[in-house]
Amino acid sequence: MNQLLKGICVILATPFDTKRDVDFASLKTLVDFELNAGVDGITLLGILGEVMRLSETEKHEVTKTVVNQVEGRVPVVAGTGASGTDLAIMYSKEAEELGVDAIMVAPPRLLKPNDDGVFNYYRDIAEETDVPIVVQDEPTTYGVHMSPSLIARLATIERVEYVKLEDSPTPLKITKIRNLIGDQLGILGGIGGLYFYEELLRGACGVMTGFSYPEVLVKIYKAFTNGERESAKDSFYKALPLIRYEAQPLVGLAIRKEILRRRGAMKTAVLRDPATTLDLESLRELDELMAYASKGHPDASSIR
Amino acid sequence: MNQLLKGICVILATPFDTKRDVDFASLKTLVDFELNAGVDGITLLGILGEVMRLSETEKHEVTKTVVNQVEGRVPVVAGTGASGTDLAIMYSKEAEELGVDAIMVAPPRLLKPNDDGVFNYYRDIAEETDVPIVVQDEPTTYGVHMSPSLIARLATIERVEYVKLEDSPTPLKITKIRNLIGDQLGILGGIGGLYFYEELLRGACGVMTGFSYPEVLVKIYKAFTNGERESAKDSFYKALPLIRYEAQPLVGLAIRKEILRRRGAMKTAVLRDPATTLDLESLRELDELMAYASKGHPDASSIR
Amino acid sequence: MNQLLKGICVILATPFDTKRDVDFASLKTLVDFELNAGVDGITLLGILGEVMRLSETEKHEVTKTVVNQVEGRVPVVAGTGASGTDLAIMYSKEAEELGVDAIMVAPPRLLKPNDDGVFNYYRDIAEETDVPIVVQDEPTTYGVHMSPSLIARLATIERVEYVKLEDSPTPLKITKIRNLIGDQLGILGGIGGLYFYEELLRGACGVMTGFSYPEVLVKIYKAFTNGERESAKDSFYKALPLIRYEAQPLVGLAIRKEILRRRGAMKTAVLRDPATTLDLESLRELDELMAYASKGHPDASSIR
Amino acid sequence: MNQLLKGICVILATPFDTKRDVDFASLKTLVDFELNAGVDGITLLGILGEVMRLSETEKHEVTKTVVNQVEGRVPVVAGTGASGTDLAIMYSKEAEELGVDAIMVAPPRLLKPNDDGVFNYYRDIAEETDVPIVVQDEPTTYGVHMSPSLIARLATIERVEYVKLEDSPTPLKITKIRNLIGDQLGILGGIGGLYFYEELLRGACGVMTGFSYPEVLVKIYKAFTNGERESAKDSFYKALPLIRYEAQPLVGLAIRKEILRRRGAMKTAVLRDPATTLDLESLRELDELMAYASKGHPDASSIR
Repeated sequence: MNQLLKGICVILATPFDTKRDVDFASLKTLVDFELNAGVDGITLLGILGEVMRLSETEKHEVTKTVVNQVEGRVPVVAGTGASGTDLAIMYSKEAEELGVDAIMVAPPRLLKPNDDGVFNYYRDIAEETDVPIVVQDEPTTYGVHMSPSLIARLATIERVEYVKLEDSPTPLKITKIRNLIGDQLGILGGIGGLYFYEELLRGACGVMTGFSYPEVLVKIYKAFTNGERESAKDSFYKALPLIRYEAQPLVGLAIRKEILRRRGAMKTAVLRDPATTLDLESLRELDELMAYASKGHPDASSIR
Repeated sequence: MNQLLKGICVILATPFDTKRDVDFASLKTLVDFELNAGVDGITLLGILGEVMRLSETEKHEVTKTVVNQVEGRVPVVAGTGASGTDLAIMYSKEAEELGVDAIMVAPPRLLKPNDDGVFNYYRDIAEETDVPIVVQDEPTTYGVHMSPSLIARLATIERVEYVKLEDSPTPLKITKIRNLIGDQLGILGGIGGLYFYEELLRGACGVMTGFSYPEVLVKIYKAFTNGERESAKDSFYKALPLIRYEAQPLVGLAIRKEILRRRGAMKTAVLRDPATTLDLESLRELDELMAYASKGHPDASSIR
Repeated sequence: MNQLLKGICVILATPFDTKRDVDFASLKTLVDFELNAGVDGITLLGILGEVMRLSETEKHEVTKTVVNQVEGRVPVVAGTGASGTDLAIMYSKEAEELGVDAIMVAPPRLLKPNDDGVFNYYRDIAEETDVPIVVQDEPTTYGVHMSPSLIARLATIERVEYVKLEDSPTPLKITKIRNLIGDQLGILGGIGGLYFYEELLRGACGVMTGFSYPEVLVKIYKAFTNGERESAKDSFYKALPLIRYEAQPLVGLAIRKEILRRRGAMKTAVLRDPATTLDLESLRELDELMAYASKGHPDASSIR
Repeated sequence: MNQLLKGICVILATPFDTKRDVDFASLKTLVDFELNAGVDGITLLGILGEVMRLSETEKHEVTKTVVNQVEGRVPVVAGTGASGTDLAIMYSKEAEELGVDAIMVAPPRLLKPNDDGVFNYYRDIAEETDVPIVVQDEPTTYGVHMSPSLIARLATIERVEYVKLEDSPTPLKITKIRNLIGDQLGILGGIGGLYFYEELLRGACGVMTGFSYPEVLVKIYKAFTNGERESAKDSFYKALPLIRYEAQPLVGLAIRKEILRRRGAMKTAVLRDPATTLDLESLRELDELMAYASKGHPDASSIR
């Protein structure tokens, strides 16, 4: 079993100012917020980070800022996938040079998805890089369905050490992958944490999600790994109203940025277009949900 | 506002025996189970009913059996969409003759989805039928994305009286539709009930889902319509662990059939292929979840 | 190499009258038209046959009519795929009882396409039927991408004897399949005949298409199998303007029905909705293209 | 009617050397090759240019090189679409500063395509740029289906002056758009030229494609605009065997690069991965097709 990534590897949003430029000051605040919450790893340039709406220069600067701010306290994972192999290698090498501890690589966009094309892409990237690779299994965005047997095949590539699952139902998929290759890959859950408890039960080594109350996930994970299952489950069930609310497609990103803003982790909740934004009803729903989330976890407000 | 459909319009699974034939005895038991739970309407031949895996003769017999068993106690809605307009009209007329109170019509499969094609399909069906039509907004299965403005346009067709939303995020979509046409359409929520509370807050007249503890949804809806919002929300939050578990794509149907079997509502949990079935871990997860669901709602076991 | 299907296995349109009912008289005329053109096989209930817009009763009657009209002069292949395994088995057995010589089976619709699901579907159908099976590789309509290695795996199932390719580029795919399994499967080309010459060069045993001048394809195939390659190629190139015109997505079906009507093979060019119909410009384009097609092949008008 | 773009606006491939770096010397040769063929415009950074596999720096350098090499002899159009509005604006402004005459803008990738999202994207880009915009209607790659009425709505945006159609059937779509807005938009055909003659008949002002014998398209267009329809049609029909061969999905790019290499327009036919490459049979097929293409057009070999 690989040991670098485990527990809560939170995915960072990318804060923007009101002119939609990257707000690097907020980015540092956000990193501190997550570290104070006790997360075990920091992931940047994921879908939540609006990676597809950042320029190459911005991605470079975001990576540099995060690596510097984290200062080695937890591992840093950068998203470096691309629609072409050469580009993905370029992004991966660049991230490596900036000091990230691992890279999360989304599959290439393929007009006709096929296993060999996906395999060769990961193999070629692995040959050119030196840090562990997290395979990003995200069919909704990238259009590539990875079967458990394809994932098992990817695990034969040196340095492909983790898979991050966004292919629901994740609990069943964890079991299928482990039936094929045991602990050969570390498996990180996803789906916004909606099945985090079941993912842990089935052998996930952690979760990668941008849930806006990371300290809650930290608490669940600690209880679970301490053998306090009932306590872990209780905390998980109490977190579900908000986890579920954030798990909504399209608008989930806006919800998270608004909560992070309210919690002081970033200055604005600005998104880059095309974006789905919150309506007035959403803001009222958030009032209720945040009150509930804070009640369940009285320490929440003191994170920062 | 239309008054026929409101509250909990439960969607029926189609019970099969071990030879995968329709189990009509269980179908009657299932209808009784749902009526005993206090549901406000019964929907058959939806995706949960494995409608795409039933022959025309089976669909006819299932409809007849359900209509007879319900005996007019609540409205019965039958799914009658098809990949062609003529076929949808044929199915709709047949359902009408068998005595259903409304028809739920899925959009046609279109190689290149377009608003006019969708509009003409509903208009032509409405011209040939006499019962209210529920537009089934289900992009995942049928590949048709209906914008709020298309739905508003469909609402101009006589007898198009309801829309059933499976296009997440449903809360935002409800508000958008109501901003365009107010109460002109009754809006039924979906997504397995995962946003039922927010859907009600935003003006949904009910929900169409096959959640396996219908009495819980009934309780939430009654509390909500009685103005006891906090109570409704409490019950809703307590139901979330299971609602969320059933909301998993692919395997959700197997989960529901297994719970309905355990609760005595049908004899087997058999699915027609290609199906995603439960693994051993799923069965153990269900033990925990059902214990929790029953604890929260002590009356659950006495439904039948 | 299997010997039942080879050469021009024309796909039949389904003629409708002006009330959109199946026009069985025209169906018989159409069968005669195709047989007079010298086709080597007749395929019914394909996409061109608007199979998804026919009721089960209509499919039954169409199959019966065609089998009777052909009277064993050439093999008859019926499309019997369905969105569920049990339904596909039911349709397949029914077609078999009506006397078809082979069945063409489209893959099931899968929310998450996967090789095992597709394999099990074909295996289960093959176990319940007795005639040769043609795997219909049509990703555009059915959403299932079959890799050459999946097709090779399907070829291990007894009675899976042919594959009909609609997955462009077909020439490359033919070579890939043959590199894996040689002549174990008979390969029928598609794409409206647009790559018929290259498909033959690479080892296809024939083509399945509904091209409206079947006698032209017959001539090309005969020349090719007689070793007269240049002559085959000349005829093919001369047919390309019309082949290409019919190969347009969405409107191709309307084009073919209109040409068949003009050639006397059916009484109307009526389509079932939702349909893309011809505009005035299309009708004028057809005048030119048919004049060209007839000039190149002076015998065309005497087919019936 | 807009007058900047008309006739043959050829799309450039991006030449790579054997290390897969951009081969700028070949890029200049390629530009000369196209200008010698008599094209009316040069389009770069399209799908054929493997734009999704180029870094931002490479895109910058490619644009600069092409603009310099063309030296104003024909208009230069650069592809500047992106998955986010801000990024598309950035790319568009950069291209403008480098001296392009127009920008071709692909739609943004949208999880749930919707007309308003697409409209706002183009409106925002148009507000920030000063050159004419070509809307790239390419649903296969970008997943956005633009209805004729959406295109008519986009035409109300200042500087949206052209639409380039890759949404088959293009002839019908041209007529539908013109029925809505007449000549308000210049319409450029696509689909590899496969329906070029019909596109011209229906009012297209030209074609944007990377066909490897541009001089043939030039000849067809000149004959057509000179009123010599029969001659235009003859030349078009003679070009169809190769046009059709290049129009194959996935492998079309490899075919064109190989022909361009053979014709001396670039040094290698190297593609960036993931790529579909030519097999031995393809190379033999190309021998035949190029011999035929050259025979029909004896001047072909003297282009450079």
